[in-house]
Amino acid sequence: MTLLSELQALLGASHVLTGADADTYVLDWRRRYRGAALAVIRPGSTEEVAAAVKLCATHGVPLVPQGGNTGLCGGATPDASGTAIVLSTARLTAVRAVDTDNDTITVEAGCVLQAVQEAAAAADRLFPLSLAAEGSCTIGGNLATNAGGTQVLRYGNTRDLTLGLEVVTPEGEIWNGLRGLRKDNTGYDLRDLYIGSEGTLGIITAATLKLFPRPVASCTALLTLDSIDSAVELLSRARSGFGAALTGFELMSGACLQAVVRLFPQQRLPFEGESAASPWFALLELSDSESEAHARERFEAVLGAAIEDGLVNDAAIAANVAQSKALWQLRESIPLAEAELGKSVKHDVSIPISSIAGFVHNTNALLQARFPGVRHVIFGHLGDGNLHYNVANAPGQTEAELLALQSDIYGVVHDSVHAHDGSISAEHGVGQLKRDELPRYKSPVELALMRRIKHALDPQGLMNPGKVLQA
Amino acid sequence: MTLLSELQALLGASHVLTGADADTYVLDWRRRYRGAALAVIRPGSTEEVAAAVKLCATHGVPLVPQGGNTGLCGGATPDASGTAIVLSTARLTAVRAVDTDNDTITVEAGCVLQAVQEAAAAADRLFPLSLAAEGSCTIGGNLATNAGGTQVLRYGNTRDLTLGLEVVTPEGEIWNGLRGLRKDNTGYDLRDLYIGSEGTLGIITAATLKLFPRPVASCTALLTLDSIDSAVELLSRARSGFGAALTGFELMSGACLQAVVRLFPQQRLPFEGESAASPWFALLELSDSESEAHARERFEAVLGAAIEDGLVNDAAIAANVAQSKALWQLRESIPLAEAELGKSVKHDVSIPISSIAGFVHNTNALLQARFPGVRHVIFGHLGDGNLHYNVANAPGQTEAELLALQSDIYGVVHDSVHAHDGSISAEHGVGQLKRDELPRYKSPVELALMRRIKHALDPQGLMNPGKVLQA
Repeated sequence: MTLLSELQALLGASHVLTGADADTYVLDWRRRYRGAALAVIRPGSTEEVAAAVKLCATHGVPLVPQGGNTGLCGGATPDASGTAIVLSTARLTAVRAVDTDNDTITVEAGCVLQAVQEAAAAADRLFPLSLAAEGSCTIGGNLATNAGGTQVLRYGNTRDLTLGLEVVTPEGEIWNGLRGLRKDNTGYDLRDLYIGSEGTLGIITAATLKLFPRPVASCTALLTLDSIDSAVELLSRARSGFGAALTGFELMSGACLQAVVRLFPQQRLPFEGESAASPWFALLELSDSESEAHARERFEAVLGAAIEDGLVNDAAIAANVAQSKALWQLRESIPLAEAELGKSVKHDVSIPISSIAGFVHNTNALLQARFPGVRHVIFGHLGDGNLHYNVANAPGQTEAELLALQSDIYGVVHDSVHAHDGSISAEHGVGQLKRDELPRYKSPVELALMRRIKHALDPQGLMNPGKVLQA
Repeated sequence: MTLLSELQALLGASHVLTGADADTYVLDWRRRYRGAALAVIRPGSTEEVAAAVKLCATHGVPLVPQGGNTGLCGGATPDASGTAIVLSTARLTAVRAVDTDNDTITVEAGCVLQAVQEAAAAADRLFPLSLAAEGSCTIGGNLATNAGGTQVLRYGNTRDLTLGLEVVTPEGEIWNGLRGLRKDNTGYDLRDLYIGSEGTLGIITAATLKLFPRPVASCTALLTLDSIDSAVELLSRARSGFGAALTGFELMSGACLQAVVRLFPQQRLPFEGESAASPWFALLELSDSESEAHARERFEAVLGAAIEDGLVNDAAIAANVAQSKALWQLRESIPLAEAELGKSVKHDVSIPISSIAGFVHNTNALLQARFPGVRHVIFGHLGDGNLHYNVANAPGQTEAELLALQSDIYGVVHDSVHAHDGSISAEHGVGQLKRDELPRYKSPVELALMRRIKHALDPQGLMNPGKVLQA
């Protein structure tokens, strides 16, 4: 029997897609990577995943796990050879358990992030992972890439939200590590090894995640600032003034928000005149376990002092949930506005917060010296030291002309990141996009350790080959 | 040249200890494990560690890393063969950097935990890891065992407090992973693999750790409760009422505190009569980023409702820092009081919080059925689902008689932990003590994955052999 007929017998013919049916699975959503697949399979249970993986291992056929296919680094797209099977988790959508006394939820990998958030809310709990793709990305993909998002400052990355995993190994065995424990020191931390490994060591099929009390109230404000240095100083004050109640601190350059309101006229800045033309904006969110009034009082105390001291020029505090959502929508529309403006050269970097202002000043200058007139599109999660530092075309430069410079621009920005002790991938992972950059920025010792682990857990090299490490 | 003379040439003769000079290094502090060593070496820098490890690797001589030698599972004690070198981190005590804008501190492995706390406090920051041995344990040992302690509820285990590591590999290479980044998704999570691996994969020589704003105020109370069920319900209310401000929730059986005040007459319970004889006590701590008055007001609101609803019988709220310290001292004196009462059979277990009351009820009953009259000495970090569930002798039973039953008692308790989806080592690690228990409670798949990783990173098997996994 051929592998395909064995897979059809195992999963049912309707869950083994080939030809045109497989098309959407071999193209990433940003349309930067197009691959090919022997077939796309959609197992309906962990046991089916394990059996399918075993079949592939027997035939020596590589596997590319895929969740919502919303990744930004081509990590879920097969190569062009057409020799791999794409394993979609689309049918692994069960919420297996919600335990409110333990504050945990156990979900299958194919659950859409928003569905996990909603299941938590239905139990009067918060699952705090939140990011722009939450309506279509899956928790399995979030785990495979250790996704970040807008709540990392308070709640951490996906890694920090995870207590246990269920994983199918490259041999098709099931590791049941679905523990709901805050403390467990009985051996090597396999959980964190699989999280962020982008499907190259095994396939995550389910996870036990932490839940939190829902905040009683929150307070959101959009602020205008003169410089990134002021933003860093404000962050430091907000951290000490609000403690763990500070749940969001986003930084946006004026160009970002001005593009949003230009392109999406239904959205508006809550400022006029000079404030609307501010070079920098910060979006702050405070979550409170007491009351609206208390949240607002705390918020106004810290902001009032910041305005008095000249750190903040103007502030718009949301008066209700709708206004708060509108402020967040401005922030979340930046990637869409960027897309409308044409392709840019994107970077997802992190820098120690103490160096972030210096990094921006230096890198802007380096880029202007080498590529005069290119525009800096800078926004991100300042509270985590994570910037989306993107570069758009200079006036008169075509998209094609800019993209021809892409690898040179990567080089300038990533070298600068490295010089500032930062990371060239803060929250998007490595995938195909940054795989060949790693040897430039990671030590040979670290790469050798990674390769040893890859070889130990996937000796045949069948799990998502060519991602993270060269095959 | 022999290994010892090579080590003397490398480190200086005074840092290669043999004979009686090595005595205190080959006995664990609870005096349960006595081993022997070829020598004890005390390198003075990461480079010296690397060079010494390289020499040992060349000679095929095993290494046992040791910090403050305060472990509870024999993880830092060599075996009796006398073939291993103990590598003490005692001279790696530099605080390499404090970065207040980034809220990080970089310290060497031999720093005593209390020195790390003090360096943070000197920079007006909090390093929250806190445990009974903090005056003598080292941060390297905390990292190697992923130590827990009393602040896990809010700040997490040592793992959660760590951003970067520096590690010497079994071949004597230095991996510099001292990153001060909140987000970094560029490959496999080596950091978390080394954390908690108890020196079996390499030697942690330095770490970059997270700092936090110091709370402006805190509020501590000792409460009396009728049952562990009431304590679980109170925890749930405290989590939702205080959110991230809840920084401590310790549970203690009445027998524990009554033993403390009996043995240490300078300590007193803040209760009289029936309350002093309560079957259960809880110690709560709230940390506030606003003010003393605000902390107390919040605290009293939640506690008042709990008293009204009959969950809590009596409450003593500390009126000042001295009183707060006295309450914590009651909690922290329990292990000392236990030691005064003679050896007991100790368990460091975690259970999903939703199952913890059932676990205690069931396990108490199982033990009484099999070992009538033994006393349950129960205390721990309820907020983390972590209990130190210890078993003391029945009236009239000698210490020797109890210890003869030790492995049977382990069996009953650990089987019950396993049946309640818990962990047999919540925060103390595996070491020698629990190594041979793992195969009973971990799946063959998980153990096989651990062995593959061990073999991949330490193919000669020279790093702390016989700990965690069988050699």
